Amino acid sequence: MSPVRRIEIPAREGRGVMLAAGQRFRCIDVQGKQCGDLFAFSQADVGEFASAEHTRVSAGRLFPQVGGQFVTNKRRPILTLLEDHSPGKHDMLVAACDPTRFQLLGVEGWHASCQENLEKAMSGFGHTGINIPQPINIFTNIPVLDDGALDWRPALTKPGDWIMFRTELPCYVVLTACPQDVLPINDKNPTEMALEVLDE
Amino acid sequence: MSPVRRIEIPAREGRGVMLAAGQRFRCIDVQGKQCGDLFAFSQADVGEFASAEHTRVSAGRLFPQVGGQFVTNKRRPILTLLEDHSPGKHDMLVAACDPTRFQLLGVEGWHASCQENLEKAMSGFGHTGINIPQPINIFTNIPVLDDGALDWRPALTKPGDWIMFRTELPCYVVLTACPQDVLPINDKNPTEMALEVLDE
Repeated sequence: MSPVRRIEIPAREGRGVMLAAGQRFRCIDVQGKQCGDLFAFSQADVGEFASAEHTRVSAGRLFPQVGGQFVTNKRRPILTLLEDHSPGKHDMLVAACDPTRFQLLGVEGWHASCQENLEKAMSGFGHTGINIPQPINIFTNIPVLDDGALDWRPALTKPGDWIMFRTELPCYVVLTACPQDVLPINDKNPTEMALEVLDE
Repeated sequence: MSPVRRIEIPAREGRGVMLAAGQRFRCIDVQGKQCGDLFAFSQADVGEFASAEHTRVSAGRLFPQVGGQFVTNKRRPILTLLEDHSPGKHDMLVAACDPTRFQLLGVEGWHASCQENLEKAMSGFGHTGINIPQPINIFTNIPVLDDGALDWRPALTKPGDWIMFRTELPCYVVLTACPQDVLPINDKNPTEMALEVLDE
């Protein structure tokens, strides 16, 4: 599968790309055990974005299966999950990490976060003050236990694992390589990711 | 427990109340088998509101237990769950119903919805164009099955069942008596609710 464009995402950073409807893209975990926070916003109105709570209703489950779709807060399909070459553990329950999250975890001083990465990527497209959606947390292994508790476990991905989507609306897609290094979800070692656009 | 104020919420409608920090209130399912969509917004900034995805992180579970708290999108406590005199089945996974939801379910013409009820209640406080948060769906019985699927089941509440909260910030609290009558969550018979404020 040869990409028409490959965007390298350094560890702890995020990158965005502007895509037309019908373009396929892959999110790649380069070294393995790395979680990615994926966001998609409609270009026509960035107040419309991939929404976890609307997607759970539409898909009838916690996370869409291969072939399923992610819908916006206006219940329109925005991404289709085409292929999943990973252990298939993804999360759509927990908020993006942000400066306050790291403060509450005892970190002193500034710490990179998916929320800041998202805001930076979107401001690169001229959009500031955006809503911060609940992310699509790819490769993120936070199972729901029988009693309803959430368990923050290391990602199960191996080097080069990937997941592929198709856009259903003209959208901004942002992927952030989660900088979480206090909890074990990235095996306490945040590493780089890549986003490959597969169609012209 | 004698309320200082009781707000009747007609079937399919919503009502809001402005509360100081530290006030207790009860949400009552008058006839039973009725789901309520509960929202809380900071009075200081309605862009700060009870957030499902931040609450799941803070509580470490799908829904807080008695004694646990709901936090905002800025990770500040806004509500504490004080008592639960119901079967204890609540949801924090699915979006509020809205006009599009009923359209997609095959309803023709206008249908009442929790989103419109919320917008109406908040516009009564002078706030239009608000964000629509993922609600705290009290009495709503949508279990997660072993394979990650969600099952929309009738509420288990009996007449007069209630749940009590305390505000932790000055906030607007809105409760809507869910008008869903296509799916079985309200036993296909939406009925009234009540909101009782328990402290001056």
